[in-house]
Amino acid sequence: MGEFRSKFLEVYSLLKSELLHDSAFEFTDDSRQWVDRMLDYNVPGGKLNRGLSVIDSYKLLKQGEELSDDEVFLASALGWCIEWLQAYFLVLDDIMDNSVTRRGQPCWFRVPKVGMVAINDGIMLRNHVLRIIKNHFREKPYYVDLLDLFNEVEFQTASGQMIDLITTLEGEKDLSKYSLPLHHRIVQYKTGYYSFYLPVACALLMAGENLDNHNDVKNILIDMGIYFQVQDDYLDCFGHPDVIGKIGTDIEDFKCSWLVVKALELGDEQQKTLLHENYGKADEDCVAKVKDLYKALNLEGVFAEYESKSYEKLIKAIEVHPSDAVQAVLKSFLAKIYKRQK
Amino acid sequence: MGEFRSKFLEVYSLLKSELLHDSAFEFTDDSRQWVDRMLDYNVPGGKLNRGLSVIDSYKLLKQGEELSDDEVFLASALGWCIEWLQAYFLVLDDIMDNSVTRRGQPCWFRVPKVGMVAINDGIMLRNHVLRIIKNHFREKPYYVDLLDLFNEVEFQTASGQMIDLITTLEGEKDLSKYSLPLHHRIVQYKTGYYSFYLPVACALLMAGENLDNHNDVKNILIDMGIYFQVQDDYLDCFGHPDVIGKIGTDIEDFKCSWLVVKALELGDEQQKTLLHENYGKADEDCVAKVKDLYKALNLEGVFAEYESKSYEKLIKAIEVHPSDAVQAVLKSFLAKIYKRQK
Repeated sequence: MGEFRSKFLEVYSLLKSELLHDSAFEFTDDSRQWVDRMLDYNVPGGKLNRGLSVIDSYKLLKQGEELSDDEVFLASALGWCIEWLQAYFLVLDDIMDNSVTRRGQPCWFRVPKVGMVAINDGIMLRNHVLRIIKNHFREKPYYVDLLDLFNEVEFQTASGQMIDLITTLEGEKDLSKYSLPLHHRIVQYKTGYYSFYLPVACALLMAGENLDNHNDVKNILIDMGIYFQVQDDYLDCFGHPDVIGKIGTDIEDFKCSWLVVKALELGDEQQKTLLHENYGKADEDCVAKVKDLYKALNLEGVFAEYESKSYEKLIKAIEVHPSDAVQAVLKSFLAKIYKRQK
Repeated sequence: MGEFRSKFLEVYSLLKSELLHDSAFEFTDDSRQWVDRMLDYNVPGGKLNRGLSVIDSYKLLKQGEELSDDEVFLASALGWCIEWLQAYFLVLDDIMDNSVTRRGQPCWFRVPKVGMVAINDGIMLRNHVLRIIKNHFREKPYYVDLLDLFNEVEFQTASGQMIDLITTLEGEKDLSKYSLPLHHRIVQYKTGYYSFYLPVACALLMAGENLDNHNDVKNILIDMGIYFQVQDDYLDCFGHPDVIGKIGTDIEDFKCSWLVVKALELGDEQQKTLLHENYGKADEDCVAKVKDLYKALNLEGVFAEYESKSYEKLIKAIEVHPSDAVQAVLKSFLAKIYKRQK
């Protein structure tokens, strides 16, 4: 991998420059500078996995055929649309979660003089996605499908975020609401569609495919997204902070994590009572009690089994797909996340 | 007027019901209830002028021809899209401005248990617009133009909001930045496009028109939007609180109002100094000094002259338009706002 990384990064500068000179708006100098700084702060600083995977997937769909400069550019532009979309979600999520840091720097709304203007900046990021698409895909036969795709995925992500937010509402901490189906639903909508399905769907559209014929691909990618989030939940508690780059706080934050859901499923009455009494509290001792319970229930082993079973199931589902190229795309995704430590 | 009001209100219930059973998302009972309440709280409680004007405009474009039930429904649906868009802006603006009340009730984010979840609710409202459009216009020949229109108008509104926010940033209160061109630019983008151009553009698309051929209509409506906002600025200071339904606070809030811009233009050095010293302070005496200055500069008279000049100019611009039907649409808009007291 990394074949397209430097090209991808060049495309960012170009897209930003177009946005800073968008003819649909007359910038003032102040507002142009503001957007410039806001983009550099929020868009390019992530791992860029989602964005890069559009190009990788497209290349695999073309079965290794050499991509033209134009194709690399367009796939990069769509990749950046996903990064922009992600930046939009993160800027607003950080305000809603009252977070402190993101990607090793203060959350955007905590930067001096930004504050609640960050809400409008989030909106700008979201609008930029559509400006980029319009600038570069307006004449493509799949333009309207691209708009529908981004719109539907954004709707699903916001809906998933909504159930997540409502479930963890202040003053309503009620562990009995948590279950595997609820966890599944939050993860599927909040993360699965935009992180896993969207990059591949973009590549499929560019390759001239009709997405209606690829529901099987969507389902596999959503299952992969759920597997990915279960890993995330697992690493939040059992991963090494130096490796995962943060100190997990899911227990303190009363998150509907796969671990707590499993503990509720496997624990006896006494253990469930312990969970109800200690989950979602910022107190160190409470957190330690929850972690001890996770260990007593051997959630590490339960996870290891979940991991290998999920892998087998995904591989099986992939291998019945009629297209070798699509199989290659899906296997490449799976290889990137299987047994990841961060 | 009011011919379509009850039909319009019926359409709201239908659209809401569709959104609460959207197949792109599996609601939980809690989340369905949440959206239901959020919509009723934020969408239908305004004056509905923008929404209703889509139907009125469409009817005028059809030159009084009887509208079919289907046409009334579709125009109503687009009208509601504008009301939904407006609700989205207001929910988020109220958080950014730290406002207290809206339409005679607490701002949504101030409702118990809502808080910052209101940000995601704003996002949901925005997404609903596109769900409604997709549900009812996907097969129309103007579907893609409708998407482009709403996307561009949203981008322009957010951009206008951005210069407004940046100009009034805390700790940067600098009156010397305020000028008529800046005022014009904020108003044009923040209000003009979505409040004036969008309803007519929706009606034009429904009537089969290509918006590229109607730049003159756009320009007239944007000028009307600016005139409307100048009235708003004027009424904020000189309107009667019982009539306009609120107590104006533009002076306290350091708003880039037409009045302060005019005062800066017309005042001598001493008067400008007084403005610099007293504008944007919550203190009663400061506010009174600014109001006295407005009176000393006869801004009431200046406004009256601006109002009649604007009217004349708008009428002239309308009357050179080749289409009688379009003239009727524009005149109907202008009649609704000329010399309004609230």
